[in-house]
Order: sequence, then C-alpha cells, then structure tokens
Amino acid sequence: MQIKAFKILTSSPSDTSGIERLFAENLIDPFEVICIIGKTEGNGGRNDFTRDLSMLAFEDLFSSKLGISRHEVTERIIFSLSGGCEGVVSPHIVVFARSGRMMAEAGAEKRLIVGTGFTREFRPEEIGRIAQVEETAAVIKQVVQELKVDSMKDVHLIQMKGAIPKFSYEEGVAASKSGKPLRSDMVYSRGASALGAAVALGEIDVKDINDDSICSDWSKFSSTASCSAKPGLKRTEIMVMANSRFAGGDLVINSGVVNDMIDVNSIRGVLEGLGFTISGGQLSAEQSQRLVGIFAKSEADPRGTIRGKRHTMLTDDDIDDTRYSRCVLSSVISSITGDTALYVSTRSEHHGPLGGGTLAIIARAHS
Amino acid sequence: MQIKAFKILTSSPSDTSGIERLFAENLIDPFEVICIIGKTEGNGGRNDFTRDLSMLAFEDLFSSKLGISRHEVTERIIFSLSGGCEGVVSPHIVVFARSGRMMAEAGAEKRLIVGTGFTREFRPEEIGRIAQVEETAAVIKQVVQELKVDSMKDVHLIQMKGAIPKFSYEEGVAASKSGKPLRSDMVYSRGASALGAAVALGEIDVKDINDDSICSDWSKFSSTASCSAKPGLKRTEIMVMANSRFAGGDLVINSGVVNDMIDVNSIRGVLEGLGFTISGGQLSAEQSQRLVGIFAKSEADPRGTIRGKRHTMLTDDDIDDTRYSRCVLSSVISSITGDTALYVSTRSEHHGPLGGGTLAIIARAHS
Amino acid sequence: MQIKAFKILTSSPSDTSGIERLFAENLIDPFEVICIIGKTEGNGGRNDFTRDLSMLAFEDLFSSKLGISRHEVTERIIFSLSGGCEGVVSPHIVVFARSGRMMAEAGAEKRLIVGTGFTREFRPEEIGRIAQVEETAAVIKQVVQELKVDSMKDVHLIQMKGAIPKFSYEEGVAASKSGKPLRSDMVYSRGASALGAAVALGEIDVKDINDDSICSDWSKFSSTASCSAKPGLKRTEIMVMANSRFAGGDLVINSGVVNDMIDVNSIRGVLEGLGFTISGGQLSAEQSQRLVGIFAKSEADPRGTIRGKRHTMLTDDDIDDTRYSRCVLSSVISSITGDTALYVSTRSEHHGPLGGGTLAIIARAHS
Amino acid sequence: MQIKAFKILTSSPSDTSGIERLFAENLIDPFEVICIIGKTEGNGGRNDFTRDLSMLAFEDLFSSKLGISRHEVTERIIFSLSGGCEGVVSPHIVVFARSGRMMAEAGAEKRLIVGTGFTREFRPEEIGRIAQVEETAAVIKQVVQELKVDSMKDVHLIQMKGAIPKFSYEEGVAASKSGKPLRSDMVYSRGASALGAAVALGEIDVKDINDDSICSDWSKFSSTASCSAKPGLKRTEIMVMANSRFAGGDLVINSGVVNDMIDVNSIRGVLEGLGFTISGGQLSAEQSQRLVGIFAKSEADPRGTIRGKRHTMLTDDDIDDTRYSRCVLSSVISSITGDTALYVSTRSEHHGPLGGGTLAIIARAHS
Repeated sequence: MQIKAFKILTSSPSDTSGIERLFAENLIDPFEVICIIGKTEGNGGRNDFTRDLSMLAFEDLFSSKLGISRHEVTERIIFSLSGGCEGVVSPHIVVFARSGRMMAEAGAEKRLIVGTGFTREFRPEEIGRIAQVEETAAVIKQVVQELKVDSMKDVHLIQMKGAIPKFSYEEGVAASKSGKPLRSDMVYSRGASALGAAVALGEIDVKDINDDSICSDWSKFSSTASCSAKPGLKRTEIMVMANSRFAGGDLVINSGVVNDMIDVNSIRGVLEGLGFTISGGQLSAEQSQRLVGIFAKSEADPRGTIRGKRHTMLTDDDIDDTRYSRCVLSSVISSITGDTALYVSTRSEHHGPLGGGTLAIIARAHS
Repeated sequence: MQIKAFKILTSSPSDTSGIERLFAENLIDPFEVICIIGKTEGNGGRNDFTRDLSMLAFEDLFSSKLGISRHEVTERIIFSLSGGCEGVVSPHIVVFARSGRMMAEAGAEKRLIVGTGFTREFRPEEIGRIAQVEETAAVIKQVVQELKVDSMKDVHLIQMKGAIPKFSYEEGVAASKSGKPLRSDMVYSRGASALGAAVALGEIDVKDINDDSICSDWSKFSSTASCSAKPGLKRTEIMVMANSRFAGGDLVINSGVVNDMIDVNSIRGVLEGLGFTISGGQLSAEQSQRLVGIFAKSEADPRGTIRGKRHTMLTDDDIDDTRYSRCVLSSVISSITGDTALYVSTRSEHHGPLGGGTLAIIARAHS
Repeated sequence: MQIKAFKILTSSPSDTSGIERLFAENLIDPFEVICIIGKTEGNGGRNDFTRDLSMLAFEDLFSSKLGISRHEVTERIIFSLSGGCEGVVSPHIVVFARSGRMMAEAGAEKRLIVGTGFTREFRPEEIGRIAQVEETAAVIKQVVQELKVDSMKDVHLIQMKGAIPKFSYEEGVAASKSGKPLRSDMVYSRGASALGAAVALGEIDVKDINDDSICSDWSKFSSTASCSAKPGLKRTEIMVMANSRFAGGDLVINSGVVNDMIDVNSIRGVLEGLGFTISGGQLSAEQSQRLVGIFAKSEADPRGTIRGKRHTMLTDDDIDDTRYSRCVLSSVISSITGDTALYVSTRSEHHGPLGGGTLAIIARAHS
Repeated sequence: MQIKAFKILTSSPSDTSGIERLFAENLIDPFEVICIIGKTEGNGGRNDFTRDLSMLAFEDLFSSKLGISRHEVTERIIFSLSGGCEGVVSPHIVVFARSGRMMAEAGAEKRLIVGTGFTREFRPEEIGRIAQVEETAAVIKQVVQELKVDSMKDVHLIQMKGAIPKFSYEEGVAASKSGKPLRSDMVYSRGASALGAAVALGEIDVKDINDDSICSDWSKFSSTASCSAKPGLKRTEIMVMANSRFAGGDLVINSGVVNDMIDVNSIRGVLEGLGFTISGGQLSAEQSQRLVGIFAKSEADPRGTIRGKRHTMLTDDDIDDTRYSRCVLSSVISSITGDTALYVSTRSEHHGPLGGGTLAIIARAHS
C-alpha cells in the first residue's frame, strides 16, 4: 500500500483546478482519493460559508469523476475543511490517495499509512463523558492495529470529527435535573475525542480519569489528536496517520506537542524527527519543498497570559480569539518551515497542555 | 552620559503604576525621562482612543511629578504610543531616561546613546518629495554627529514622527493643476522620512532618487527607520539610538532588516549581533530577560503573496491588514526572543524591502 | 405579458428549496424565470463568498431544470446577489418570471413590466466619462420605449451591473500622462451608470454635465438607478422595471429618492404612491404581506454628518461603513414596512443626493 | 426644585468643551450637576476604553471645578457612559443638574424630577435571585416616594448600575454543590435589577416570581428599567426619573415598551404622550429640537427571528449582536425623532418583552 499526498494552493474556496490537474497528469487516480484536508479563507465561525462553497465544488467534481451522487462522495472521501487563513496562511488543500494493498512483508523503511474508522452512534448523554472516551479509544485502537505499526509511537495524527447528537429541550432539562447535565456540544465532544486518542495510544490510563476530568483536568491530554466536532453528527469519524513498515511510498509523518503558541523548539523537534537539519532558524527552500502537510491545533491561553505576560486575545471584542491564535501559531510554524500553506485549526481541549496544541507534519522522505 | 531603559507591563492603557514604582524605587528620576515608547491595546486605527487615554494618564503623571503643564510634558518627553496588541503581544511601555553628560573620553565599550532633533517646519508641497528627504537627512546627520559614533553602522534606530502640514482645499487643487499634486499625507510622509534616514546614514545617495522614487521605487530603503506620521504636525520629530564609546550604562542596541514577515534568520542575526548565542530556536529565559526593547515595522506584502504563495491579508474585509501584519511579525519575533512585550508598528514604506521591515533590539550587555 | 414575482426566505446562501417549491407548485415555470435578486449573509466585501455559493447553487438548479450548461444559465437569467444582511435583514431572494406576450391593447391598469438590455462593450477610457453616460442612456431609452410606458414617470427601477473593462499597467500610465487618467473602477462605473439613467429619463440634460461632473457634482443624480459594477465586465447589463398599460398581472412598482438614511417621509411617500394608507407609523401585517420586493441604495454620508450631527461610520476601523449604512437604511425601511426581507445595497454615487439613495418597491395591487 | 438638562455633542470621548461652555454661560452651575449620561464611540465591549477616557476627562474637569478629588467626583455625580455609536448615532452627553428644593405645594404641571438611591451591599449568592429583586424594589419604592409622584405611572426611567459582588473560586464551587450556583454576573444582575423595578412600580407581584423566573420567564418585565451591571460593584446604584407636581422647570419625561427592534408605533406613542403631534413619519425639525434625552435598551431577539423572519445578528462572527441591535434600534428611533444624538444601550433582560426593550424620552414642555 502506498499513500500519495499533494499540497495544492487554491485561488478561491471553489477552486478545484489544482486537483483536476493532478488527475489530468495521472498523479492521482480520482478513485484512490481518500481524504482532502484544507484551509479556506473564511472566518472559521458560524457564518463562514467558504467551507460549504468548497464542499459544493468538491462534491460536483468527484460526483462527475466517479459517477456517484454527491452524498456518496461525502460517504467515500473524508473532507476536513477548516475556515480561517489568518495572517500569512495561504489557502490550500492536501489531497490524500491510497493505492495498492498493505505490503505482505515489513519493509526496511517506515512510511505513511492511513486508516479510518467510525465509532458507534452515541447517545447525547454519552458525549463529553467517559463513555465517549472509551468508545473513541476502542475504535482508534482497532484502526491502529490494522496499520501494523511497530509501536504506538509511530502514530502521529488522529484526525477526528466528533459526534454531537441532537437532543430535545425536554431531554436537556431532564438530564440537568438528574444531576448529569447533557454535554452534547462542541467543547465537550472535542475534549472527549482527544482524551480517547490519549487513552488509545496509552498516554493516559482511562482509570485515571472520570467525567469530571473532561474539559477540566488539563494535565491529561493527547499529543496526536486533531479534533473538530459537528452538531448533528451521530458517530465520530476517525482518521489515523502513522508510519508503518507495511506501507510503501515516500511519505513520512512526525508529530509533537506545542507547549504554547510560541514554542519554537517543539516545532523544530518535529522537523528534526523527520530528518531535517535546521541550519539557522528556518528550513532552506529545498527542505521546505519536501513538506506535504502541516497540521496543528491552536488556542489562546485561557488564563489570559503567555510566558507570564498578559495577552489580550480573550478581551478583544472586535476580533475573535480563534482568529488570533490561528494567526499566531501559523506565523510561528511558517517562520520555521518557510511554508505558509499550513493547516492550523483552533480550540485544543486536551490537545497538548493548556494554551498549547498538537502538531503533525508530513514530508517526503527524500528530496 | 548613561541611558537607562525599563520595560514595564501595563494592565490597561492608563496604567502608570509601573513607572511610578520606578520612581518610588529611585530606579529612574522623573526629571531624567526622555522618552516613552509603548503599545496599547486598541486597533491602531482612527477610532483607537487607547493612545489618547494613555497620553492623558502620562501627562497627568509627569505634570504632577515635574510641576509643569500637560503641554510642557509633551514638549519635554517624546511619546511614541502605538495601538494594536494583536495576538500574543503584551501591552507595555519602555521608559528611557538619560543621566549625566557625555563622557569626555571614549570608553572601551560601546553603549546605547540617544539623541533627538527636529526638522524645520515643512510646507505642504515639500512632504513626500525630495525637500522632505533632504531636510530630514540633514537633521539626522547632525544628531548622529553629536552622538560621537565610530561609524554610521553604530546607528540602529531612527524613530520619527513625520510632519503632515495642513493645507486648504484650494491649495490642493492649485497644486494638482500645477502638475505637482500635494502629498501631505501619512503614506508619503512616512516614506520620505525613511528615505531621509537612508540618505543620512549613507545607505542611498540622494542623487539616486527623485520625487518619483518616493513610495514607488521600493529598492531604496532605510534599514534603521521606524516612522509614523501625524496629521497637523508641522515639523518632523526625530530620535536617534546608537551605540557610542562616549556613553556609559549597560545597554546596547542592534538592528537589521527583516526581508519578509517570516524572515527568522534576520531576526536571529540582530540578536546574535548583540552577543546572544541561540541554542535551538529560541533565547533561553535568562537571555530573554536581558531584552529591554524590541522595535519593528511590519507590512502585509502589497503584492498579495509571501514566498510565492498567496496571502489573504489584503482582501479580508473583516480584519484590517495592519492588524494581521502586526500579529504575524510579533508572533515570529516573540517566538525567537521568548518575549511577548514587543513593539511592532505597521506600514513600512521604504523601511526595508517591499513586504519587509526594520527591526531594532535593545538589550542589557550583561545578564 | 405578465410579470410574476415571489419573495422567498432562504435558510442559507445555497438554499434553493423555496424556488424549487414554486416550481413544484406550478407557481412559476423555470423556463419563464428572467431574474433573481437577493441578499446573502456575507459581508458584501472582497472576501464575501456567499454570493459565489449562492450562484453555484442556482446554476446547478437551473442547469438541471432547463437542461442547459451553467454558463448558459448565467446568460439567460439576470442574477443580482448582494452580500450583507446587517441588523434585522432577513436573507432572501425575489424571483421574477415573465409569461406571455405584451398586450396588444392598453389595459385599464398599469402593471409591472420588465425589460432588459446591454450596452456595447466599453473601452477602459470611456468608463466614468460622458461616453459611458451617453451609451448607457441610449440603451435605457430603447428598453424603456419597448415597455410602452405612458411617461418616463412610470419607470421606477433601473438595475444595472456596470462595465469595468480591464486595462494594462502601461495603458493606465499612458492615460495618466495624457491628462485623462483611467477611471475604469467601481466608483466611476456606478456613478456614470446612474447618470446614464438620469439622462435617459430626462432628469438631467447630458449637456449640463461633463467628465468633471461625474463623481463630483452630486447635485446631479438619478432617482431610479440601482447600480453595481463588476471588474472585468465589458458591457453594462441593464434591467428596467416600470408600470405599463400593456402588462397584465397584479404587480405594481413605485419609487422615490431617500434624502438621507433616516428619511422616513420619502419612504412613506413611495408606499403611499402604491396605494397604501399608513395608519400610525407602520404598515399593518396585511399590508406588509402585499410587498414583494424592496430595493434601496444606501450610503454613509461622506461629509461625516447627518442632520448636522457627527456620525462615526467613516472612522470606525472595526466595522466598514458599507455595513453600517446598509444596517441603518434597512432598519428604517423595515420599521415602516414591517418587512425585514428587503434588499439594500450600498454605495450610491449619483443615486439620489449625497448621503441619500434610491428606493423602489414592488407590491401586489390587491391583497 | 428644578431639573435642568442639556444635550451636548462631543467631538471625541475626552471632549469636555461643551459642558465647559454651559458653565461659562452660567446655564449650569457645576455644583448642581447630578448626572451625566452619554454615548462614546467605542465598541461597548471589554476592550472599549473610550468610557475610561471620557471618565478621566470628566473627573479632571469636575475635580478642578469643584475643588474635590477624582474619587469624590465619582461619589458625587452619577456617570452612565455607554460605548457604541453604531450607524447614525452621534456621540454626545446629556448633563443633568438639580437646583433648589422640592416645591412645598403641588404645581399645576408635572415636571421632570430625579431621585437617587443605593441598595445595601449584596452578597454574591443574592445576585440574580429574589433577594436582589426585593432589595432593589424596596429602595426604588423609597426613592419614588420622595419624588411625590401622583401615581406610579409618572415614573418613567429607572436607570441602574447593578451590583456584581466578587466571589472566590471556592465559594463558587461550594454554591454549585449546594444546588444554588452563584449568579453574580452581568446577565443575572441586570435581569434582577429590572425585575426589581417592575416589582417596585407594581407591574408584577413579587409573589408571582421566584429564583427560577429570573432570566427565564420573559413574560415578566419592567417597562421603565434601564440597567447595566458592573463587576466588583457591591451595591446597586439607582436613579429614578419621573414627572412630579412638586418639581419646576420645563422638562417632562415619558416612556414605553418597544415590543421589537422595529416597533415604530410604540416609539410614536412615547412621543405622543409628551404632547407631540407627528405629521407624517417624523417629528419636524422644530419638534426635534425640544428633545433633550432619548434612552433605550435594545436586544437582538435571542430566538433568531423578528416578525417571523430569520435575522443573522446572532450568527455573525465578525460583528457582535450588541452592535447590531444598537444600530437597528437607534436607526429606527432617530428616523422618527429626527435626532441622532440618542442613547441606546444593549442587553435588555426583563426590560420589555423578549426581543424588545424600554424607551424613555425627555423633552422640553414648550418650544
């Protein structure tokens, strides 16, 4: 099996010309596309329709190329489009394709491998509670197992779209009265998803956490999760990226935890783990061109300070803190990588320590 | 002569408690204060009243401490308050004080020295034209001469508030008809001020530029200017910071040109020129504490790209590009210095190359 | 001939369910649709992709219903989608359909009639100059003539998308040197389009204006224009709405000039001209339901005052004045009509007096 | 006793020239000033420092005029400065002065009278609960009694700054565990203050509400309250405006409930109650000049609709709904009054029905 991935700059959210060129040049077969991750130039908020525009364009494209309905396109391919290209960030997508079967014998080199899975459907009362953590962890473990990694340390990115099942007003009131108010919202769903990843990879023991830990005990976190959550989604969608001796191709992935939004050394560590030697403060242009995907989570430190000094991201009523934290972290990462086509999404509950986030980078093994 | 400088975090634009503490602890004598440079948490735009609030508080303080009128305070002390603490930037001020006379004999070490000057009053038709460049250059040269620097390379920061003399509607129309439309605005005043600095320090020859070069030929620029411009100001206010053997104290300054908003290596170069050895990607906490002032100019590249990739800072109608470029550059600089109390102001016409800016850093010579 | 028009609320920019319901219920035949005017919930600026999203959805719908290509859809149907649903404005579209031929004999009642036309392609040097005004006026006159109106007073809305032909940098420089700088931009194109409407309807005599009048002499204006302009468009698209004895159906249109953004009495005048008696300050719910389309142009008075008092819409660097003026005028109009599904677009050069705009309302003649 | 009030336009938040002119012309004696209510041009949010700037300027002025400290100024005069001059709103203040004693005998005419009071200090657990409602109501009743009104219907504006006592993290946790989570926040404090006003004036019976009603049962509301709340404030500050036969002068006040943000007829009703005959849709310029103060509360309907149609104020992540609702209501009110110097503040829990607000207008009895 071989994972191919291409980074494509887009001229607008509906620009599919780059991916069409990949098809035309036979660099990727549309039938092999498994995932598209990208940044669109909206605000990333509730009135950000750039993601819808992008989805409409992709659905059109694949519906036509694959001869299937729009709905079937979304069932077949995982899309993770995140709005918000603050600062230097260049709107872009990374297209992943998978070809061939898993190698029968382990090869000499570990290469990028991708697996996917889905949790069972959740009930609203499970979200943001241990039930969600455990089910999420179980599915991740199973997906990881199929990837035949040498060790959990070879797993580097667990991208999830978390379930947020709907509930009626009456169910909400009843749950509150019972002393277990429903947590079926974005914050708790992301938090529990991330803890699920941490449990699956053995970073924390599920026995050491309980319902109260979720979105509260920030000392517990995943170092590989990248979670969003979608209202109305009944089951959590999971995609795992790892390095495996049973995969071919020329892509490798590495990851790390960013301790705060200006934690340069951790970012350098992830690059160095990919074999890059950083001369000075920044990858060379040649090195930079080997980067295929940069995926990070950001958060304006909720304590209102960074490195002991006050920041104002949380009290600026003109610009949302999500836009600021994405701008900060993407500026810092791109200053090291020399690459402004990077994916930073915000809100990082249990993704790294409080005020920090996770980072995964995919690169070509050879220049 | 000795320059003292202290960096003080502020809890709000009107917070003067930190500077009052300096006075109380006899670290600075209010009569010796020559300059206050700081960032306030507004939007940096036309409806940013944080600077006015801050000025009112400082005028009150010094008026009371020095027994002079508010107006006399502003005549005596140079204030450069810049709105916009985007991202991780921590609202703060740097207070400069000067004590004693210039040393009679050159010492062994070069130390920070500060000089000030004023151009003559400009006529509106001079602004943004060679007349402004030449007068600005002449005054800078004279101020520099008084600082007894070894070489022009010892001059590192020329902070200016550029003149923008008022003119009547009729004068404007008459000038347009004469074929020389008035340029008495912020863009041209900043641009000509910066070129004045470049001429003064010998970076460019005034013969190589003419009126058409100003705000047009971006290959000509200063590497030490940091210019704002103020409508109604008749003469340009100039402050020069340099290293001189005739100054005492423990402060040194260095500067450099940032080639684009993610140009890490130039930033590292400025730090290394101050004697810092950067282990990894960031100064250590101990090194960071030696930093007293970080002053930079930012600009979203007007060509709409950075490193060949599209950015969206100029087409985002929800957030101004000035806020973005300040956020980007301050994120990058603070990620290297570990210090989020830094001063980045925006618009950098002829301050470094197009899409770049200037950077000056003041540090304690010893930890 | 009969014009049908329906106002449809939308749940998102891509919501076409309402128009599909019209088709399903045989209220409108897709082949008869001539125009869709609507408001989408973006910011109305450069990064507003809601209009693109909406267009993609409409093109899909009509391409499928009519069995033609997307491009043919845009050639066949006039779309005027305007971003910006500030304040109480409800995202919506008004769909216009035309059926049958023009009546051979004049009827007793005047009813809404719609005509369309296109100018010839413009050269860049014509835009914002008398050449654009004259050509625009000539085409409007011809379209009006075909509508068989009793008098120019029966023409109430001239919706235009103005040409902005592209030009090279060299052409721009050459034009500037020749003393006639190119004006091929949105401001001038809208302004000249509006003056073209004024000339066509006899509101001003083309002899009384010259190139210098355009976007300068604000005493000259149209009372029926509603102009946008689109970079790259070579010819101006024109749609004229009027009342004619040769049209059937039950729709009537009326219009007026709004003298400033809070000019209630002019708005009431337009409604009264449609036969509404306003008891108190607002139409009754029954009256309100007869309203089918409300189209207005807004502008924050560029002099910085309204009714002699300062406003701050032009100096607020957090919110654009276009968003404010749309919010103000739509609040005022909806407070009188009781209907928040209204179309206010901004920038109103020569659309009513400075700081004012135009207003046209379509209603059913009978409840 | 006579209340004087003057509306003064301001050129910036720190502009005190207008009030100084009143002093210079002996129109008001600085010693008689009791209250200043005004709008400043900030965003009304957490990073709105225009109110601080304005306060600093007023404290300076009165400290100098009255020969007292800044703190004594704030103890002596009630300041209610509200940020946010959206749309057409003109930054301004209304200065209230009180001279003489209350008349011994009732006069023929009712005139504006102003009374003030303070609740006792609240404990955190009382805020947003019936204890706050009852204490607030008791103090209002007492203040009203002193004003010698004929009936509760003569009370038209109860302006309050509600207490929000601080509490420790531990107190918060303990309260949650006890089943009565602390409500010491802005929402609940405003809500309970408003209900206190309703109880005091007999609009609701305190027996008909309980803790659960507060910020939940929106059918219960005050028609005269205008409440803000201030973190850290221990007691609620109350100012009551009414018409009394025991007051002289030429000012009268009237009030009403605005049912939604475009409820023109209620606004007209308040004006008609002041004796204005509205010819057409707007007061004449002469009538408008008699208006001295317009005070209203606004709210974007939290149900997401207005008059059954969707609005987008709550899902626009670029512009806060508080800015929108102020813009809408002030546009509508100023369109009727012809006066853009009006005070609309936002968040109106239990101020009129859900999605509505309260409105009070002060006018000169004679032109």
